[in-house]
Amino acid sequence: MLEQVISNKDRAGILVQALPYIQEFNKKTIVVKYGGNAMLNEELKQAVIEDVILMSCVGIRTVLVHGGGPEIEAMLKKTGKESRFINGLRHTDQETMDIVQMVLCGKVNKDIVALIQKNGGRAIGLCGIDGGIFKALRLKNAEDLGLVGEIDSVDVSIIDPILDSKIIPVISSVAYGIDEDEGKSLNINADIAAAKIAAALGAEKLVLMTDVCGILRDINDENSLIKSVSRRQLDDLKKEGIITKGMIPKTACCEIAIDSGVKKAHIIDGRLPHAILIELFTDEGIATMINRD
Amino acid sequence: MLEQVISNKDRAGILVQALPYIQEFNKKTIVVKYGGNAMLNEELKQAVIEDVILMSCVGIRTVLVHGGGPEIEAMLKKTGKESRFINGLRHTDQETMDIVQMVLCGKVNKDIVALIQKNGGRAIGLCGIDGGIFKALRLKNAEDLGLVGEIDSVDVSIIDPILDSKIIPVISSVAYGIDEDEGKSLNINADIAAAKIAAALGAEKLVLMTDVCGILRDINDENSLIKSVSRRQLDDLKKEGIITKGMIPKTACCEIAIDSGVKKAHIIDGRLPHAILIELFTDEGIATMINRD
Amino acid sequence: MLEQVISNKDRAGILVQALPYIQEFNKKTIVVKYGGNAMLNEELKQAVIEDVILMSCVGIRTVLVHGGGPEIEAMLKKTGKESRFINGLRHTDQETMDIVQMVLCGKVNKDIVALIQKNGGRAIGLCGIDGGIFKALRLKNAEDLGLVGEIDSVDVSIIDPILDSKIIPVISSVAYGIDEDEGKSLNINADIAAAKIAAALGAEKLVLMTDVCGILRDINDENSLIKSVSRRQLDDLKKEGIITKGMIPKTACCEIAIDSGVKKAHIIDGRLPHAILIELFTDEGIATMINRD
Amino acid sequence: MLEQVISNKDRAGILVQALPYIQEFNKKTIVVKYGGNAMLNEELKQAVIEDVILMSCVGIRTVLVHGGGPEIEAMLKKTGKESRFINGLRHTDQETMDIVQMVLCGKVNKDIVALIQKNGGRAIGLCGIDGGIFKALRLKNAEDLGLVGEIDSVDVSIIDPILDSKIIPVISSVAYGIDEDEGKSLNINADIAAAKIAAALGAEKLVLMTDVCGILRDINDENSLIKSVSRRQLDDLKKEGIITKGMIPKTACCEIAIDSGVKKAHIIDGRLPHAILIELFTDEGIATMINRD
Amino acid sequence: MLEQVISNKDRAGILVQALPYIQEFNKKTIVVKYGGNAMLNEELKQAVIEDVILMSCVGIRTVLVHGGGPEIEAMLKKTGKESRFINGLRHTDQETMDIVQMVLCGKVNKDIVALIQKNGGRAIGLCGIDGGIFKALRLKNAEDLGLVGEIDSVDVSIIDPILDSKIIPVISSVAYGIDEDEGKSLNINADIAAAKIAAALGAEKLVLMTDVCGILRDINDENSLIKSVSRRQLDDLKKEGIITKGMIPKTACCEIAIDSGVKKAHIIDGRLPHAILIELFTDEGIATMINRD
Amino acid sequence: MLEQVISNKDRAGILVQALPYIQEFNKKTIVVKYGGNAMLNEELKQAVIEDVILMSCVGIRTVLVHGGGPEIEAMLKKTGKESRFINGLRHTDQETMDIVQMVLCGKVNKDIVALIQKNGGRAIGLCGIDGGIFKALRLKNAEDLGLVGEIDSVDVSIIDPILDSKIIPVISSVAYGIDEDEGKSLNINADIAAAKIAAALGAEKLVLMTDVCGILRDINDENSLIKSVSRRQLDDLKKEGIITKGMIPKTACCEIAIDSGVKKAHIIDGRLPHAILIELFTDEGIATMINRD
Repeated sequence: MLEQVISNKDRAGILVQALPYIQEFNKKTIVVKYGGNAMLNEELKQAVIEDVILMSCVGIRTVLVHGGGPEIEAMLKKTGKESRFINGLRHTDQETMDIVQMVLCGKVNKDIVALIQKNGGRAIGLCGIDGGIFKALRLKNAEDLGLVGEIDSVDVSIIDPILDSKIIPVISSVAYGIDEDEGKSLNINADIAAAKIAAALGAEKLVLMTDVCGILRDINDENSLIKSVSRRQLDDLKKEGIITKGMIPKTACCEIAIDSGVKKAHIIDGRLPHAILIELFTDEGIATMINRD
Repeated sequence: MLEQVISNKDRAGILVQALPYIQEFNKKTIVVKYGGNAMLNEELKQAVIEDVILMSCVGIRTVLVHGGGPEIEAMLKKTGKESRFINGLRHTDQETMDIVQMVLCGKVNKDIVALIQKNGGRAIGLCGIDGGIFKALRLKNAEDLGLVGEIDSVDVSIIDPILDSKIIPVISSVAYGIDEDEGKSLNINADIAAAKIAAALGAEKLVLMTDVCGILRDINDENSLIKSVSRRQLDDLKKEGIITKGMIPKTACCEIAIDSGVKKAHIIDGRLPHAILIELFTDEGIATMINRD
Repeated sequence: MLEQVISNKDRAGILVQALPYIQEFNKKTIVVKYGGNAMLNEELKQAVIEDVILMSCVGIRTVLVHGGGPEIEAMLKKTGKESRFINGLRHTDQETMDIVQMVLCGKVNKDIVALIQKNGGRAIGLCGIDGGIFKALRLKNAEDLGLVGEIDSVDVSIIDPILDSKIIPVISSVAYGIDEDEGKSLNINADIAAAKIAAALGAEKLVLMTDVCGILRDINDENSLIKSVSRRQLDDLKKEGIITKGMIPKTACCEIAIDSGVKKAHIIDGRLPHAILIELFTDEGIATMINRD
Repeated sequence: MLEQVISNKDRAGILVQALPYIQEFNKKTIVVKYGGNAMLNEELKQAVIEDVILMSCVGIRTVLVHGGGPEIEAMLKKTGKESRFINGLRHTDQETMDIVQMVLCGKVNKDIVALIQKNGGRAIGLCGIDGGIFKALRLKNAEDLGLVGEIDSVDVSIIDPILDSKIIPVISSVAYGIDEDEGKSLNINADIAAAKIAAALGAEKLVLMTDVCGILRDINDENSLIKSVSRRQLDDLKKEGIITKGMIPKTACCEIAIDSGVKKAHIIDGRLPHAILIELFTDEGIATMINRD
Repeated sequence: MLEQVISNKDRAGILVQALPYIQEFNKKTIVVKYGGNAMLNEELKQAVIEDVILMSCVGIRTVLVHGGGPEIEAMLKKTGKESRFINGLRHTDQETMDIVQMVLCGKVNKDIVALIQKNGGRAIGLCGIDGGIFKALRLKNAEDLGLVGEIDSVDVSIIDPILDSKIIPVISSVAYGIDEDEGKSLNINADIAAAKIAAALGAEKLVLMTDVCGILRDINDENSLIKSVSRRQLDDLKKEGIITKGMIPKTACCEIAIDSGVKKAHIIDGRLPHAILIELFTDEGIATMINRD
Repeated sequence: MLEQVISNKDRAGILVQALPYIQEFNKKTIVVKYGGNAMLNEELKQAVIEDVILMSCVGIRTVLVHGGGPEIEAMLKKTGKESRFINGLRHTDQETMDIVQMVLCGKVNKDIVALIQKNGGRAIGLCGIDGGIFKALRLKNAEDLGLVGEIDSVDVSIIDPILDSKIIPVISSVAYGIDEDEGKSLNINADIAAAKIAAALGAEKLVLMTDVCGILRDINDENSLIKSVSRRQLDDLKKEGIITKGMIPKTACCEIAIDSGVKKAHIIDGRLPHAILIELFTDEGIATMINRD
């Protein structure tokens, strides 16, 4: 499995190097938004699962939040559901929402739970409906997108005892609708769900898995990775055009988390196996870390 | 809502009549297998939800176990999945199992949870995969039915703290496969799942919702309902041909529960609104109750 | 027992109608001042006992406070104790106080406890001396009434664990004297004792049992019952002469409770069987409820 | 207060001599049957109260059980109640029982509680009815004595948390009747009540306060006090005629306690001030101690 | 052992006189600085040990802090270590510090623990290094005294659970060095260590054992003992020249404690056997007590 | 620090390889006997400290037991103490025992505690006297060796809460003498102390650090290391002359531990840095592991 022959002394050295990080994060909460390629590729998936189990093992209160765009796509196609698009955004009608809920809460979620348990961890699969974790109002847009919600409140009272029992909660981005949508399911953005739950849990870190290296000063040069940036510097980076396109909503999520008290947010490259572990437990990080100031 | 005008005194009288039952069942565990018409008809569904919330409110540790045949059927049809039948039994291949899991864990389960919360209760939706509640081996039959399991072990360690918090666990009949099916999902019988979890929780009662009145001495005469029968008398009733056909697996479930320590099992008629409440909280039961001896 | 033949469906409906109230009052504290006819008539007494047991059963932290004028009267007569009256008020000398204490703490109190246990509940009988629940100073009046006290402090530290154990504390209106009456027993007003203990427990409700319907707009017309009134409106009702005579001290008690944080106070008609239950658990109340504003 | 001028060094010496006893009895339960002259004489009463408060202070789980013959006598006389005697034993009819209950639970009990609190201790007054501490059947004798009971069961579940809170439970010898006397109060023997509660609490010691020195080898010579005797030797002492008359039921109580697991029983002379303290905390005991063997 | 023959009644009287003090100090924390002659004389040592065990027994959270000058002296001499003096103060080089640490933490400390256990108490011996109880910076003086520290922070998180378990912590005056002395041991003043730990524990009292009577108005007249003085009056006493020489650092310690919230500080004469007990548990104190105001 | 340049992927791989061991040992107790070269060499010492902190961090209840022969030797020499030898064994007179206690409990013990805290861990230094952890009788030999004890009882009641708080107890091999040596300190064998405390704690593992590779089949060939052997096979190895000399008492210790319920005992080579970590957390062990069977 290892690429090199590594001496016992070096093996021990690597474990010892991880020690200060293990000490630092002990009993702290880290919320991982799991997504992108790392959900599709089997080897990457296995590595993510190993990472979160290790985190849980060394005493980190670990929460996994996930969406599941591609699997929803596939199921919609399979059922022959035609989608209506409004300004390029899919309209989520009741039938679509049913598919979203089934795929996220019934398939993706439980498969992750099964994989964690297959690897020796313990997990429970939940969604925002359970215990009213996420209550949402319908997203108010110019154009009505249907059953799409924005989170109104987060209730982590059922998550805390799960974390106390050293079980990993795996949470789907489906919310319980309130007000005029009382009792309905609403589709919510998984990145924001992760940021909001990190905030509600007073998390130490939010880790967003993406399919890019992090924030690059020069988008064409992976060596230009910005390893550490303060919350305040993000605005400059936007003005300078360094944070653009898909990176904008990712950093927006990090801002939500940090502005609500989360200490650090990491935008990591989910295409690298064990990216979480390397970012958290080794001296040289491999992602962009956003600090409070 | 009430059919008659009922005096305040009579209202109070009915509450007071319920008192000894409330006292008796306080802090006891009752597992309800929810199924049949009561899952399809909106009025019946509402009544079941009200019943379990009331049970939870008066201090009964209430667990809901459900399957969902008709909704699986509908989804299979929708996705155009052709089923292979073996001796009249559907073969559950991986694709079918994925649909089963999605519908049960993602749709039926979460919809029940949402409905409980809409009515003021608190619930968490789980399946046998979560925390390894149900571990199953593949069912060994003459003919291979595919991903169909029989329960090997039940782990209620995550359910107990949920019940302690007065939250209603709602559990789908999907199991975590072990041995040669390690990590796979297996389809299990919901009645047996309910019986097994009742046993593991040391439940006071197992309540099986069916679409019949209970055990009838004369199948054509609803007035011939056997209201109470001992575990030992069941064999005689089978020999006498009184327990036949669909009632055989139902009573078999009750036997499993009672032989594992559950005090009483009730076969109730889910077609009557509030059948659970009437059976549990009024002097005249309306179902068949099976006692330990 | 019921006056009408009531269908099972209606029975269930009545239980379900009680559900939102049961949910609302769960783990809340309700203090009932028990007195008047409901203490003398055996049928009414039985109904009150059933009501408080039911309250306790559905998770209400239920406290019963009682006085016992008629029984004291009878015992004084029996022992041939001549009373001295001052401006129409009885002077409580040491000998009278001994009788008061014996009757309230030794007879009325323990008989209520026995009756609760006979009906399947659990209760403990206490008075203000026990654990220093009520400490009182001698009432300073123009005329000295003897060993009559006004409550100086309330200590509920021994009541909270009793309520946590789901046991009903039954408390007599006798206080522990302090300052110049250190260690002596003092007679206190039971209505005020109930109001003060409700305040000290942060109760949801104070329920005062009386021998009238509640506050009537027209004292001769029971249909003129004021079902709900705010704390602020009471003054107007007094000015208008609607609250008069015996109702004045009753509403004064309610004001004490509400001004100290109790959410609602109910003046109910103890002459109706199950008045407490009907007021608390049905849609149509039958008493006067005083709200905070 | 002290009879002699005692040097500080000697004062300290006396405290230090008490140390091993304090250590030995820490967290142990000691049940004191309070009765006789020590209940009538004010100075003795004060000394008993100081003793039990000191016991409680140094960590002894202290329980006080009392009867109250003379005060009952006085009240019966006061109310002009004529007693019927059967073979010299008073018949306890309902009216008499009411007086017994009032005097014991309402007067004697609460006065002891008040006195403990006046001296800086904390106490709660209970009787056998509260929480069903003593359940009793009617005593079956040749001649019916009326509402006189013998203890059928003891439930200390409400006493343990009181002791955990370092509060002194003071318990009257009135029981809750069961079976044909369900719900009625029954008069029980206070010595036996103390012995039974000591057994139920797994007490270290039962201390019976009497009006004699203890067991005297020569009833006319106080110097013949038997300071220590084993359970087995009691029979010999009875045969030898050393244990006679009033000492017979006292030793019988001790036997009940010891045979049910209480380690030691002490028959002490309540006429000496601080007899309990001297017996428990000084090297030279002043009473008869009965050991298990 | 006692100097006089003392009657049982007087023995009991002395115990009862101690009662209000026992009640007052129950669950309070008292820190005793143990030192001087009371550490050298075997009879005095035994008396101190008995005093602290008795304190612990009656529910006082008792902490013992000690230094050990004479024993360090002896060991330095034994090892032939020549000391360098700076302005009359010994320079603590590493070799000297090693001896200090060995003697205090290894000998004096563990011998006290052994003696407590020999007398039936329970104790744990700790020093400022354990759990980082005392963190110290090197004392900044004109002249460098070597490894001598002043306390920078006190962490009592490991002491609280020990006290909760009714075990006596015995603490040596050796600190864990921080900053430039990170990880080194530093010698600290035991009186100040006691004052600081009393402050950190929110103690009721600091008791400093000395070899003098307390503060004397006339240093040559033991009858001029000032039994009680307020924190504010100390300044006057210093100006008046009543507090001089060795008493200055002792009162300074008391000031530290009282200014940090300790209620009272006692300067007691360790040459009197049981001085602690007499000061704490009898009406006439024998030391100087400094009050907050 | 690492000998090679190791890729991030391999670093992660090594952490992941440790995962199953971390999972396996979570909340298990491992007792490490620290001794030999690993106590003398600074680099080895640092590595041991890092190992035990890492163990503690990943949830292992880690206990360190130590002796300290060489440092005792040095101190005896320094104080000029002449030793008397009996059959080649040193006689431990009181003066020698004082030195032993000072060096072990005051110097070696506290230095280890300081080093753990310097590296970010939390530790408390104790010896067998504290809380009576080790009670010992004088070793009965043909020749009297003086104050040398053999362990009579082990009391871990003060160690359990320390482990619960994730603090590392560091324990010196000095015992509290009982019977004729009541209250004296006795010198005990540190290996046996470790074995006995492992047994008393129900430890998963005892790890004995030695200055050899483990059990070698050929004492001259390090490649002949026996990596795993059952308790039963040890006798054969002794008969075959493979276990000889210094290895005999080491294996005897392991036998004590295993026969008292410890699952596994490891004889590891303390001369290799991080030997503990490599033995516990990597696939290839580097020591001799003794299994229960």
